[in-house]
Amino acid sequence: MKIDIINGPNLNLIGQRQPEIYGQETFDEVLEKWRTTFSVELNLLQNNVEGELVNLLHASSADGIIINAGAYTHTSIALRDAIAGIKKPVIEVHMSNVAGRESFRHESFLTPVCMGCVFGFGMDSYRLAIDQLIHHLRS
Amino acid sequence: MKIDIINGPNLNLIGQRQPEIYGQETFDEVLEKWRTTFSVELNLLQNNVEGELVNLLHASSADGIIINAGAYTHTSIALRDAIAGIKKPVIEVHMSNVAGRESFRHESFLTPVCMGCVFGFGMDSYRLAIDQLIHHLRS
Amino acid sequence: MKIDIINGPNLNLIGQRQPEIYGQETFDEVLEKWRTTFSVELNLLQNNVEGELVNLLHASSADGIIINAGAYTHTSIALRDAIAGIKKPVIEVHMSNVAGRESFRHESFLTPVCMGCVFGFGMDSYRLAIDQLIHHLRS
Amino acid sequence: MKIDIINGPNLNLIGQRQPEIYGQETFDEVLEKWRTTFSVELNLLQNNVEGELVNLLHASSADGIIINAGAYTHTSIALRDAIAGIKKPVIEVHMSNVAGRESFRHESFLTPVCMGCVFGFGMDSYRLAIDQLIHHLRS
Amino acid sequence: MKIDIINGPNLNLIGQRQPEIYGQETFDEVLEKWRTTFSVELNLLQNNVEGELVNLLHASSADGIIINAGAYTHTSIALRDAIAGIKKPVIEVHMSNVAGRESFRHESFLTPVCMGCVFGFGMDSYRLAIDQLIHHLRS
Amino acid sequence: MKIDIINGPNLNLIGQRQPEIYGQETFDEVLEKWRTTFSVELNLLQNNVEGELVNLLHASSADGIIINAGAYTHTSIALRDAIAGIKKPVIEVHMSNVAGRESFRHESFLTPVCMGCVFGFGMDSYRLAIDQLIHHLRS
Amino acid sequence: MKIDIINGPNLNLIGQRQPEIYGQETFDEVLEKWRTTFSVELNLLQNNVEGELVNLLHASSADGIIINAGAYTHTSIALRDAIAGIKKPVIEVHMSNVAGRESFRHESFLTPVCMGCVFGFGMDSYRLAIDQLIHHLRS
Amino acid sequence: MKIDIINGPNLNLIGQRQPEIYGQETFDEVLEKWRTTFSVELNLLQNNVEGELVNLLHASSADGIIINAGAYTHTSIALRDAIAGIKKPVIEVHMSNVAGRESFRHESFLTPVCMGCVFGFGMDSYRLAIDQLIHHLRS
Amino acid sequence: MKIDIINGPNLNLIGQRQPEIYGQETFDEVLEKWRTTFSVELNLLQNNVEGELVNLLHASSADGIIINAGAYTHTSIALRDAIAGIKKPVIEVHMSNVAGRESFRHESFLTPVCMGCVFGFGMDSYRLAIDQLIHHLRS
Amino acid sequence: MKIDIINGPNLNLIGQRQPEIYGQETFDEVLEKWRTTFSVELNLLQNNVEGELVNLLHASSADGIIINAGAYTHTSIALRDAIAGIKKPVIEVHMSNVAGRESFRHESFLTPVCMGCVFGFGMDSYRLAIDQLIHHLRS
Amino acid sequence: MKIDIINGPNLNLIGQRQPEIYGQETFDEVLEKWRTTFSVELNLLQNNVEGELVNLLHASSADGIIINAGAYTHTSIALRDAIAGIKKPVIEVHMSNVAGRESFRHESFLTPVCMGCVFGFGMDSYRLAIDQLIHHLRS
Amino acid sequence: MKIDIINGPNLNLIGQRQPEIYGQETFDEVLEKWRTTFSVELNLLQNNVEGELVNLLHASSADGIIINAGAYTHTSIALRDAIAGIKKPVIEVHMSNVAGRESFRHESFLTPVCMGCVFGFGMDSYRLAIDQLIHHLRS
Repeated sequence: MKIDIINGPNLNLIGQRQPEIYGQETFDEVLEKWRTTFSVELNLLQNNVEGELVNLLHASSADGIIINAGAYTHTSIALRDAIAGIKKPVIEVHMSNVAGRESFRHESFLTPVCMGCVFGFGMDSYRLAIDQLIHHLRS
Repeated sequence: MKIDIINGPNLNLIGQRQPEIYGQETFDEVLEKWRTTFSVELNLLQNNVEGELVNLLHASSADGIIINAGAYTHTSIALRDAIAGIKKPVIEVHMSNVAGRESFRHESFLTPVCMGCVFGFGMDSYRLAIDQLIHHLRS
Repeated sequence: MKIDIINGPNLNLIGQRQPEIYGQETFDEVLEKWRTTFSVELNLLQNNVEGELVNLLHASSADGIIINAGAYTHTSIALRDAIAGIKKPVIEVHMSNVAGRESFRHESFLTPVCMGCVFGFGMDSYRLAIDQLIHHLRS
Repeated sequence: MKIDIINGPNLNLIGQRQPEIYGQETFDEVLEKWRTTFSVELNLLQNNVEGELVNLLHASSADGIIINAGAYTHTSIALRDAIAGIKKPVIEVHMSNVAGRESFRHESFLTPVCMGCVFGFGMDSYRLAIDQLIHHLRS
Repeated sequence: MKIDIINGPNLNLIGQRQPEIYGQETFDEVLEKWRTTFSVELNLLQNNVEGELVNLLHASSADGIIINAGAYTHTSIALRDAIAGIKKPVIEVHMSNVAGRESFRHESFLTPVCMGCVFGFGMDSYRLAIDQLIHHLRS
Repeated sequence: MKIDIINGPNLNLIGQRQPEIYGQETFDEVLEKWRTTFSVELNLLQNNVEGELVNLLHASSADGIIINAGAYTHTSIALRDAIAGIKKPVIEVHMSNVAGRESFRHESFLTPVCMGCVFGFGMDSYRLAIDQLIHHLRS
Repeated sequence: MKIDIINGPNLNLIGQRQPEIYGQETFDEVLEKWRTTFSVELNLLQNNVEGELVNLLHASSADGIIINAGAYTHTSIALRDAIAGIKKPVIEVHMSNVAGRESFRHESFLTPVCMGCVFGFGMDSYRLAIDQLIHHLRS
Repeated sequence: MKIDIINGPNLNLIGQRQPEIYGQETFDEVLEKWRTTFSVELNLLQNNVEGELVNLLHASSADGIIINAGAYTHTSIALRDAIAGIKKPVIEVHMSNVAGRESFRHESFLTPVCMGCVFGFGMDSYRLAIDQLIHHLRS
Repeated sequence: MKIDIINGPNLNLIGQRQPEIYGQETFDEVLEKWRTTFSVELNLLQNNVEGELVNLLHASSADGIIINAGAYTHTSIALRDAIAGIKKPVIEVHMSNVAGRESFRHESFLTPVCMGCVFGFGMDSYRLAIDQLIHHLRS
Repeated sequence: MKIDIINGPNLNLIGQRQPEIYGQETFDEVLEKWRTTFSVELNLLQNNVEGELVNLLHASSADGIIINAGAYTHTSIALRDAIAGIKKPVIEVHMSNVAGRESFRHESFLTPVCMGCVFGFGMDSYRLAIDQLIHHLRS
Repeated sequence: MKIDIINGPNLNLIGQRQPEIYGQETFDEVLEKWRTTFSVELNLLQNNVEGELVNLLHASSADGIIINAGAYTHTSIALRDAIAGIKKPVIEVHMSNVAGRESFRHESFLTPVCMGCVFGFGMDSYRLAIDQLIHHLRS
Repeated sequence: MKIDIINGPNLNLIGQRQPEIYGQETFDEVLEKWRTTFSVELNLLQNNVEGELVNLLHASSADGIIINAGAYTHTSIALRDAIAGIKKPVIEVHMSNVAGRESFRHESFLTPVCMGCVFGFGMDSYRLAIDQLIHHLRS
């Protein structure tokens, strides 16, 4: 079983800056642990370009996808269309509690075409999504 | 460790009606399994009255709370105030993908005062929330 | 054939106050007449609590329901969900011409999930709804 | 006692097309039955032109009027003014449950100047309106 | 002279929690003092259920009412209708400066049907309302 | 010099009904006086059909036009286009003070393509418009 | 094969006025050429009255319809309903680039119930629509 | 008979600048002519300060007032209240066709509390208002 | 202890006009009484000019300020900034129940930067504000 | 004569997936046919990246351009500016009837700066645009 | 070369209060320095009254104007009209980053009729505007 | 001291096209002059791809940044997040007076996270920003 984790703009900086807030672990370190925990292939993909995220979705050979589209969540119909055109389960995640931030972060173009959404739990948002995606793929 | 699961209006019917959609398991049966899985005390509380849900939040002696306020999610400032006044972690869940339903279900009064939110995975939304709440309480 | 008439907030005062406007007849007196006219069992249920109206809808054993949710008409998604979950015909009524009152009374959360709506004819709104519900149940 | 039933745009097609949906009875056939049932003079008037509906309202010599303005319901201030200028009781009807259709069908310019409104019951919407109009004119 | 003070959701917690903010006095202690100051009967009523607040308004035998409907201020047409149906003077109060909080707290459904409103002065909002209500009832 | 006065829906009733409000004079009587006062040819044209008002504008052979489009003022882009396509001065009038009525009467589709507008003075709105149109045509 | 071209308000003036803008050809002249080019029966129908356009749609015996409803495009639910009730392919056209004009011309009530839309190419908008309609009817 | 003409901000510049647009006549010259034409006392008052315009309205001893509040038309509730508190007829005028300018000039706070409004005719807007005010005061 | 009472536009007319509504007492007479009742220095300041109210706020040497900005309440960011820049307690008052009047009177630019607000009690709104301001200054 | 056809996000998948909906022909196959039909050079360019579409527009050496910007149609001011800065005719096309889809697809940032638009006819939308572009370039 | 710097409401307090925030320098001291730096006549004008700012604009004999209208920036059409009527270059400045403050400070009525705008740099916003105004006047 | 100037979409064309409007100087030529004037290292970076602009912000080693994000100014939350995550001063510039253009150019996602903004002065907007950035970095 193979899962692609696709991260959008500015998420390449997580773990590199502001360790007092986000912890000192990078995505790579955390994913390494989860590969063991979940016994599943986890590929981390990141890009700051909206259209390249579309390309990643098109090119994915995974069984399921976890996407944190960052700021494009709230502006990208292109990503929505790419997800809607995929025949795989996709789960949306956010590290922060987007509903408690600026009003322009309250609506997501992506959620209606995803299975569901997990947000507000930092890196654990990803862990829960991995758990559910495996649970879903196995059932 | 004790977790209260507070369900709002119409959620008393889950498992009793439309088994072809929601499965034949009731909340009671599912929770029974999860008590074993997670080795934690899980109390299921349900009420169709908005103010009684406020009362349940006030009276709770649990370490953390999972709330699915159902339709009150989108209309109840009273519940928002009750959650904001509590000194415990609260996680919001929904069984359906609310972002893909009618526009009046897109905004939640509760999310900004909760830790985070999980929705779209049926009963598994609760399972993920329990997992995360335990994870949070233990750290 | 059994019909439940469910009245919402403040409708308990009809017939008791302001007889110059609403007439001196109470709901009980009017329904007594209509029981004879229509030869049908008519149960009058009233509650000022939104969630108790949800409970009444869940608990109803009638063949059809007539609902005047009063002020909750315009604010209650919980009642909408309760009606939508019922496998019985429900007709919405209002005594006043709600479209001619304040703008916050122009939209009803309930109408889209009811068969239809009758409003503006005082107590006769109920009479017409009873007539139509019997007509519908017999056909 | 004489009642004018004024139908607006596209309602001339009822009973001629889509019998599987609207039944095979035309307005003429149904009204013929109701003339007997209610012992009242019922005139059916129909026009697809907004201004001609205004003319019909001006020219009416009936004791009361039932109007289904169809699509003009939601766009015609001219019809509203015509109804408001009439010294007769007017009841608004719709065959479909307009509140459950597109949002541009949710507001009616006419209802605030009518006695009341009945909608959602197919041709029976008219029957209930006739019943109430006779009831009103006799009291 | 008898005055009912009706408090809405979450106001049962005042004086019990967060003494550093709201002071250590409970409503009961403060009202005891004011009973002496104003030589008037003051009844404190509180409920977290919207419909029960409607019931309290219906059942009141006081000469005047002071209401702090808390979160229901901004969502309850039912309370508005209950106040509008009462033949007694009603004054609205809030402890906090609601105009300076979230935008969904800026409009009150209740104020247009009350005599007036006092807000922003903590418990003193009640004191001023009592003063004015007595002043009004005596004139 | 020839002026067409084009009246829209429901304005055929002026002078025939409600003489206590609008006076007992009809448009015909008033215009007869003004023909003498202003020494100008005044043609009164009225139609309740939006499209026929378009036809009247197309067919006019007058030097200038005064239009009171009644309710179509607020809904008719067709009339706006017809006026905009005419190579003659057009003045808009209303008898009532439309700015003080319902909000849907506050915007006019026609004013931006007319020379100017006079409203609020009953039949005198027309008199002032005639005065100005003659003034304009002579200069 | 027979195609009805239905033109709405003010389109009767095309070719008669402003030849420097719209060219000196009338619709009749242009259609005469296209009858030869496409070897198809083309009927030109025009009316300034919204309801008469509804009548033309009802009465059409053509295989397909091209409609330029002019100003009614943006205000007429009646035309929308008429098109939706027709069992024939309908293509919407506009001569001007409506998206670049006033904001009230940006939404069309008709497009969602038509096959598609062509606009911005003057009389060529019709030519392309005829081409596509024939293409569609032949396939 | 005495009429005050009250001009608001920037109207002091009319006649002094841009004579090619507004003509070379100042208000003073034009009013001098109209004093003769209408045989009435005409006082011209102008101020750029909103509150001073309120003062002018309070202090006026005229029989009727013509006001062109310029830019304050669209922003001043204070002027609206001052006009509403006056027991004299007030007519609003504008030189330009405000409905055809920027959207923030489309609504006037003043019109609902004036008798009526004349706009779009340059200085003639004042002439028509004087005519009507005299007409009104004499009847 | 010294309190400035700052009144905005049109409030200079209170007590002079419409005694049947506002009573025959002027502000001066009422304040004279309250000076005795409260044993405090009360200065009444009034101006119809927005910017002069800003000046009064800047120049005030009082211990606290009561402001009724009248119509400027709803339009003046300048007054908001002036109050926010003052290091003294300011209470907002209104004589009428502004929440029950036109919608443009529902929001106040001033309240968020004041301590609190009292409205709906006529001149007694000021009395309560004085009471509270003294109470606040003494504590 | 050379025409560039620029396709935006997700349009690379047309013809590869869902042949039952879009047919089995790819763009390449269809364009090959049209090159013969129209005797014109047709270049197909596609990119999923918004800014690369801007680059394609800047770099184009064609005589005219047909653009289907896909999802960027509704969100990209950058593409609008790029088209507006080009001195060549540009026609916008869409395969689906965008006006009948979600509301966020109803407005296009691009249409006001294009010649015109064709949508709703699948691949034939391109064919009509090519036809018109050639027609335009030859005239 | 002469430049007028016109400051609006509450800006008279800069440098007098809150030196820890705005520094201890007053406008007078800073301008004195800049007179030397730029070798240009700099006049500082300030008024809290909107209409007096209009008067200052009318009366200015400078070659160019720098305006910081403070709170009136967001509410004054009168100032917009005054600037638009001036035949001199006007640059708008703000000390704070208005785009990052309350939403009612996001739109400026003045910017569209000014050359440009500089904001967010404290007193340096003025310095940059002076630099550019001189640059512009010299070219 | 090193300053990066980051230009967004379509700004690569400045100086190449429309020399009659923007002058014949390219950015490169102008920057060359300013390097001398300001004795500072100025790097010009330009990209039409939103995500590449994010990359440029991440990769910058300058002491301060000047950004003209062109059309992305109004649509890009990704750029806002990138700027907010940078620990360097960023100044926003625009060549045109964006406040006077289409309404969709009135709000900037970037300004609230920048120090300030300069716009409306053509290339001089950059010059002023460089001046201020140096001024800021030196203080």
